[in-house]
Amino acid sequence: MTQVDVRQRILADNAAAAAALRGRFDGSRTLVMNLISSPGSGKTTFIRESVRRLEPELKTGVIVGDLATDNDARRLRESGAPVVQVTTGTVCHLEAEMVGRAAQQLDLHGLSVLIIENVGNLVCPASYDLGEDLRIVLLSVTEGEDKPLKYPPMFQSADVVIVSKIDLAAACGYDRAAALANIRRMSPRARVFETSAKTGEGLDAWREFLLVQRQARRSLDPLS
Amino acid sequence: MTQVDVRQRILADNAAAAAALRGRFDGSRTLVMNLISSPGSGKTTFIRESVRRLEPELKTGVIVGDLATDNDARRLRESGAPVVQVTTGTVCHLEAEMVGRAAQQLDLHGLSVLIIENVGNLVCPASYDLGEDLRIVLLSVTEGEDKPLKYPPMFQSADVVIVSKIDLAAACGYDRAAALANIRRMSPRARVFETSAKTGEGLDAWREFLLVQRQARRSLDPLS
Repeated sequence: MTQVDVRQRILADNAAAAAALRGRFDGSRTLVMNLISSPGSGKTTFIRESVRRLEPELKTGVIVGDLATDNDARRLRESGAPVVQVTTGTVCHLEAEMVGRAAQQLDLHGLSVLIIENVGNLVCPASYDLGEDLRIVLLSVTEGEDKPLKYPPMFQSADVVIVSKIDLAAACGYDRAAALANIRRMSPRARVFETSAKTGEGLDAWREFLLVQRQARRSLDPLS
Repeated sequence: MTQVDVRQRILADNAAAAAALRGRFDGSRTLVMNLISSPGSGKTTFIRESVRRLEPELKTGVIVGDLATDNDARRLRESGAPVVQVTTGTVCHLEAEMVGRAAQQLDLHGLSVLIIENVGNLVCPASYDLGEDLRIVLLSVTEGEDKPLKYPPMFQSADVVIVSKIDLAAACGYDRAAALANIRRMSPRARVFETSAKTGEGLDAWREFLLVQRQARRSLDPLS
């Protein structure tokens, strides 16, 4: 078995596990997001502020992936949401099977929304479907405007692009027009939200979007 | 052959290629650095400012790895340094064999210093020796103080940690004491430099360090 064969088998196994997981999420009618970014783009703070705005209308759970430490899980538990930590060791991305095991520790039928915080990495997580409804790529204004061009697989697969830390835009000389043009070019089908977890800017629009997404998800099932 | 076997073979092949490459670098007495960080931490700007300070005393070349685009290579060529681009496609790290091929396009005997800009990723590049003398991990103040704890393999293997964008420290509420404590804990043997490519802070100390390192490298060889 060659390297290519092994990689194809890993991805095929993951696709099968993701399909099974999607079936479980469909059964509980939970809106599931896979949140991906570079290290330090602000995923955890963004999730905390999202949970704060969704509760109590939409009960939200979180699965957090990290190589090491439960720092993010502890920070997120302060929001009151149920949080499950996945420690990946040296594995640079979450896989569907890891998420499936973590989800067993959550009461999915009691959750309207599940946010999966992936390992901080703009490359490898692109290849692994986690059974999510929405793939959210988060990009902070401090990272530079050309990131979408430099990480095509991630941005091409995004359903939503969150521009974070816009309160720092002036301090770091962020070129908004260039950044948005690059996002549009690489993620033409993605919804884009410009946000600051510090000032709250953009988070109401994000909340409205999730309420509609959740409604659409429920209406797919005539029994709901 | 199992997945573990394949990974071990890949790493063994890389180690062999890195050993051969180190021999080539030893032959030309070039000081070689492998520069690793998250996407958007400021690697390219840091390299450009380093080259500017090293020339003409130390002739410096650059090998740049990216999934896609030659944006960084074009930016670096403006410094006048010879630059070779490696486009990795979907591969999330540089490997010694890729660097070896790129190095064939450089006149190593004419270079005192070679800087390798790895793919933006704090996880996967940790496993791949590129034949470097110094592994440099760069961390911007915008990424948060706990990154060393969350990406142990990378920080444990660092010879040098560069804290970048310190001009943004106040704007993003950077906790310097906490960050340095975490770096010390995970990278106890690393030299630490706090820098700003925008204001130039810390770059003279970095230059002095490289001059000494380069001198030490030459003095290893009685013919030099």
